[in-house]
Amino acid sequence: MTLHNAEGREIKVGVLGATGTVGQRFISLLAGHPYFVIHALGASARSAGKAYSQAVVWKQTSPIPHIVREMVVQECKPEFFLECSVVFSGLDAEVAGDIEAAFRNAELAVFSNAKNFRRDPLVPLIVPLVNGNHFAMIHQQRALNNPPLKKGFILTNANCSTTGVVVPLAALEKAFGPLESCIITTMQAISGAGYPGVPSLDIVDNIVPYISGEEEKMEWETLKILGGITEGDDGLKSFDMHSRHPLRISASCNRVPVIEGHTECVSVRFARRPPPSPQQVREALAAYTSDAYALGCPSAPRHTIFVHEEADRPQPRLDRDYQKGSGVSVGRVRQCRVLDIKFVVLANNVAIGAATSSILNAELAVIKGHIN
Amino acid sequence: MTLHNAEGREIKVGVLGATGTVGQRFISLLAGHPYFVIHALGASARSAGKAYSQAVVWKQTSPIPHIVREMVVQECKPEFFLECSVVFSGLDAEVAGDIEAAFRNAELAVFSNAKNFRRDPLVPLIVPLVNGNHFAMIHQQRALNNPPLKKGFILTNANCSTTGVVVPLAALEKAFGPLESCIITTMQAISGAGYPGVPSLDIVDNIVPYISGEEEKMEWETLKILGGITEGDDGLKSFDMHSRHPLRISASCNRVPVIEGHTECVSVRFARRPPPSPQQVREALAAYTSDAYALGCPSAPRHTIFVHEEADRPQPRLDRDYQKGSGVSVGRVRQCRVLDIKFVVLANNVAIGAATSSILNAELAVIKGHIN
Amino acid sequence: MTLHNAEGREIKVGVLGATGTVGQRFISLLAGHPYFVIHALGASARSAGKAYSQAVVWKQTSPIPHIVREMVVQECKPEFFLECSVVFSGLDAEVAGDIEAAFRNAELAVFSNAKNFRRDPLVPLIVPLVNGNHFAMIHQQRALNNPPLKKGFILTNANCSTTGVVVPLAALEKAFGPLESCIITTMQAISGAGYPGVPSLDIVDNIVPYISGEEEKMEWETLKILGGITEGDDGLKSFDMHSRHPLRISASCNRVPVIEGHTECVSVRFARRPPPSPQQVREALAAYTSDAYALGCPSAPRHTIFVHEEADRPQPRLDRDYQKGSGVSVGRVRQCRVLDIKFVVLANNVAIGAATSSILNAELAVIKGHIN
Amino acid sequence: MTLHNAEGREIKVGVLGATGTVGQRFISLLAGHPYFVIHALGASARSAGKAYSQAVVWKQTSPIPHIVREMVVQECKPEFFLECSVVFSGLDAEVAGDIEAAFRNAELAVFSNAKNFRRDPLVPLIVPLVNGNHFAMIHQQRALNNPPLKKGFILTNANCSTTGVVVPLAALEKAFGPLESCIITTMQAISGAGYPGVPSLDIVDNIVPYISGEEEKMEWETLKILGGITEGDDGLKSFDMHSRHPLRISASCNRVPVIEGHTECVSVRFARRPPPSPQQVREALAAYTSDAYALGCPSAPRHTIFVHEEADRPQPRLDRDYQKGSGVSVGRVRQCRVLDIKFVVLANNVAIGAATSSILNAELAVIKGHIN
Repeated sequence: MTLHNAEGREIKVGVLGATGTVGQRFISLLAGHPYFVIHALGASARSAGKAYSQAVVWKQTSPIPHIVREMVVQECKPEFFLECSVVFSGLDAEVAGDIEAAFRNAELAVFSNAKNFRRDPLVPLIVPLVNGNHFAMIHQQRALNNPPLKKGFILTNANCSTTGVVVPLAALEKAFGPLESCIITTMQAISGAGYPGVPSLDIVDNIVPYISGEEEKMEWETLKILGGITEGDDGLKSFDMHSRHPLRISASCNRVPVIEGHTECVSVRFARRPPPSPQQVREALAAYTSDAYALGCPSAPRHTIFVHEEADRPQPRLDRDYQKGSGVSVGRVRQCRVLDIKFVVLANNVAIGAATSSILNAELAVIKGHIN
Repeated sequence: MTLHNAEGREIKVGVLGATGTVGQRFISLLAGHPYFVIHALGASARSAGKAYSQAVVWKQTSPIPHIVREMVVQECKPEFFLECSVVFSGLDAEVAGDIEAAFRNAELAVFSNAKNFRRDPLVPLIVPLVNGNHFAMIHQQRALNNPPLKKGFILTNANCSTTGVVVPLAALEKAFGPLESCIITTMQAISGAGYPGVPSLDIVDNIVPYISGEEEKMEWETLKILGGITEGDDGLKSFDMHSRHPLRISASCNRVPVIEGHTECVSVRFARRPPPSPQQVREALAAYTSDAYALGCPSAPRHTIFVHEEADRPQPRLDRDYQKGSGVSVGRVRQCRVLDIKFVVLANNVAIGAATSSILNAELAVIKGHIN
Repeated sequence: MTLHNAEGREIKVGVLGATGTVGQRFISLLAGHPYFVIHALGASARSAGKAYSQAVVWKQTSPIPHIVREMVVQECKPEFFLECSVVFSGLDAEVAGDIEAAFRNAELAVFSNAKNFRRDPLVPLIVPLVNGNHFAMIHQQRALNNPPLKKGFILTNANCSTTGVVVPLAALEKAFGPLESCIITTMQAISGAGYPGVPSLDIVDNIVPYISGEEEKMEWETLKILGGITEGDDGLKSFDMHSRHPLRISASCNRVPVIEGHTECVSVRFARRPPPSPQQVREALAAYTSDAYALGCPSAPRHTIFVHEEADRPQPRLDRDYQKGSGVSVGRVRQCRVLDIKFVVLANNVAIGAATSSILNAELAVIKGHIN
Repeated sequence: MTLHNAEGREIKVGVLGATGTVGQRFISLLAGHPYFVIHALGASARSAGKAYSQAVVWKQTSPIPHIVREMVVQECKPEFFLECSVVFSGLDAEVAGDIEAAFRNAELAVFSNAKNFRRDPLVPLIVPLVNGNHFAMIHQQRALNNPPLKKGFILTNANCSTTGVVVPLAALEKAFGPLESCIITTMQAISGAGYPGVPSLDIVDNIVPYISGEEEKMEWETLKILGGITEGDDGLKSFDMHSRHPLRISASCNRVPVIEGHTECVSVRFARRPPPSPQQVREALAAYTSDAYALGCPSAPRHTIFVHEEADRPQPRLDRDYQKGSGVSVGRVRQCRVLDIKFVVLANNVAIGAATSSILNAELAVIKGHIN
């Protein structure tokens, strides 16, 4: 692989769904990016034609970046984004499908946070701290498109709760071989539901033990991400869904009154007997590094997984902003009396769980030469 | 068993730790009781000698009951409680051991909410909706005491998070035979930690994924409660800790920003193959009735387990006060891809999880003739 | 005035907006009412035709009352409510105006919680603990209607934050004569905004120092409620808006992360010099009784104003349910260095601040003979 | 005044109460300071002798700075701090008095966040964005000490809720002349009470309308800060407590479930008639600049007062971290029907309301030549 250094370059990017929660986070993060430069903003027809600062109800704790304050919002049509090399999509699932497909057909590289294409057998579902190798599917995606494409593609990142757990699971498989089963209980922040999202009457002094579609996503996406790519006799590649070593995953998803940061209690069973000890697991997690960091992605965390030693960490309020939320925290690694090992994961759902992953994926795409 | 009807009787009771969180709840519940009448209140030397309304920082949402407002608080010494037939203890673990033992030796029947005697091989650990049969140990407890006792005994109820989960587990074992393993993740209310308890800075907009000693309690108490009593060749009884069908339990305990009501995500595996279906489980849970209700305990819930059909229930704020918190709510019964069945449990930690269970245990003791 | 005793009677009532937040509270309260019996439920066309339990997303902490579970929801058209003697409206302001007018024209007595008719010069704005004398306007409202009415009328209760403060202000004016000015800062619960209402992302760990239109309502409604009714030379009555003793009111309204119960910090200046002492104010507040209680309204609180002596009360979580939220709590009565006296008010915004006041108004209407 | 440029210098500082809430914040802020370098840490005897990372329960959202991780904590005795030019005190009031006096007598410059010396007629109470001119009292403080001092002095900053309101009040007096009266209602964050501070059971879903001693502090400190220094016939200086234009202040203080950021609703009356318009007030607030910024203090905010135009700002969660919490936010400037003008203030209680003010005061002291 030839690595493409982006230093000194300036790469124009667009943001779709720019007024929404994820869109705002994209803009906040991109405003300080070393080479991505926001060039176009897309939103609904209602916002189009307005200056961004007029169109948005800004809900971030940092002010609206100067570069976008007066930028005129466009409708989400490819013709307004043709100068962009990269398009980040924070669109809602209701509209993301058609729009993202149109952008791809217009030869744009789309990095989507929406769920619409995650199950597409040609679209990589990439958690940049885990399976950068799935970029290998892009060539086939372009080739099989109708009409075939030269530059356009769609690449998605995972659901926020999947992202949190898949990073330590990948680290464990790398160190100790395949996992056999995994039980996960999540405690997910309200920001995961967007804005207006969860009504306050539903969550103050309360838990909602259900998030529509979330458990299925976690149980399915994890297999695609942790699995490999196989090539058939016809030369066609496909995602193997971890099928060489079947992995059973059971998720229970809860909404909790936390603003940011998904906490997940995880128990795993390894195929290998005897399983590793808690101390071996701790060391393997701490030692895990991502390709994204190794290849020099500027948004990649130094500590892919930060392993806490204190008995009561990680905690969302204290740990979600470590490394700007670009890594994952793990704590309480200990034996499980039913499976083998259990631990607690914390991931910032709006950073590594959403916008930061998309940006990291785009950085990887640049480095790997997929962005022209 | 000869049943003893308490109707028309008036049974004098004392409350130890009367100014604390559990003590306040005891007093609120007992104020409206059909036959238990508060006769004496015990607290620390600092409170002794004061009228209760002066000694207490009352934190209940209902006013201080009139019957105790002017009652003079005593030190926790048996001599002040000799007219009581029943003593409820809401004492902290730091002092509960010695005081409760002294009260027992003074021939008082002590119903304790503290953990000190839970592991004592002669002390029943009774969740009144589950294992009323463990009263059978009281005779031996008295006989082996030094000196042997005629009336005195100690009986404990379980930890609040254990109580929540053990009720549906008992219902499942009753219907489908022994369980093999169980993974539990709790989301526990702040009231479970007493007052002042959890500092607000630790829990507003936060989760603390650790509660000291809690996981061990859940893993251990469950075995004692769900197990039976065996009799040795020497005629001595002992708790069998579910040893005839070893049951592995793994608990992960979290503190969440909820005032009242512990929510628990539970996955179970049955010994029996094939396991029951979700619908069979739902029916078994709904059909489960406790001895406490069958025997006419006035504080027993009509619905021992209320089974929710809505996708997003139970929720602590909406469901914790159903039946005054004396029952348990279960929802989201569905298949687990790793074990067999998973579901959500909600139990009011300060009602059935604490004071209500002690009172129910005392009601059972009256009915079963253990209170003279 | 001839008093009409409702005892033994059964008065059929309807509820408009029955699936909304206020409608649900109406239903919860009416389910246990001694003589009002729910006879018809109205909601939007989307809900019409469904059983109530199917149409509603029930958000109360008590279960759906049996009497309405299977009741078929109607559209909000008078023809479906003609058997009702009283109609309670929990409609949103967007639709309340036309519907309530139509119901009045159909000779129905409408007790509205909406703001639409509050400023109407013929419609009484009644806080039942304060200005039951404003019923006197009903005759003129009927007479001037086009066409004139025999039985129909509209009567509104006040905004929830107005209701809280106007009760102690009325008590003070009754005891010490007119007030001159009043500065109020509110801390209002999220339930005041209905459902879905305030997004959780806006209010967890936050304060929103603005509620649209609320300050104007408080400054205006208070004058109508505390003012009298004057009769012109033409025999026509009008509300005098406290104009005989101009009263300046300044309100600052804030939304806080509290579920139920509006807390308000109030400073007042009396016309009378010297002003009363804090102790005199305390006594006057505690001694204040409402007509509603004196006349035997079953929903009226025994203590119209409960005066707390503790330094740190009232608190919404501890005090909002006292007397089922039908009264008002006041605490911290002390001197103000700028005006004369300051104190803290707590009122349950969904009970006395909304549904309970409407029901009390209807009870007053029955007793005063306005319901045939 | 000769200004002393600190650039290029390295000034050794100590932190007293280093393991407490304020102490932790001092350390976080000082870790990135351009010339203050942490040289010694003081805490209770229990912590002394331990490495800081072992002694502290770190509750900040950023990690423990490397410079202090292994630094050995000392007892709070002057002999361990003699190499420091500046000592910051985050001590609790119970111990601050004696320790700070001892440090002053050891010729150390003490910048205290405690309340003990605030009312001392020789100790400046300085909000660095307001009354840097009160440094003028230091000379007399040294001269009248027993024994007289050459370098040692004590300087305090204000209570966190006072600091928030006094900045805009100072701006208004500067622009429009003396104020006559001011009514303030605060909604104060839990972090203002330190750790463990407010029990969660007292504040989740609740308001506590009382903070012991807080209202008196606000009413008193404001006069000292906004007042001037007068010189008597004997040449002795004294703080005039705003006595040339008596100013009446009335505060109502509430604790709310917000982690950081005190929100305050303020109404003011000007001596000058007619009073300024809301627009004039807005402009005066926005134009106000502090000496601290003008003199180049590195921790001074560029916008001393940020004036929000949106109807619903400032909000603590969104605005408390603007400029790292070193400035003050004001919004909703509008007419008051009782006094003249009302507005909302937000100040970060742990930044400008505590540690940041102490550090700014020390920066001012360096620039003004009081630190040798």
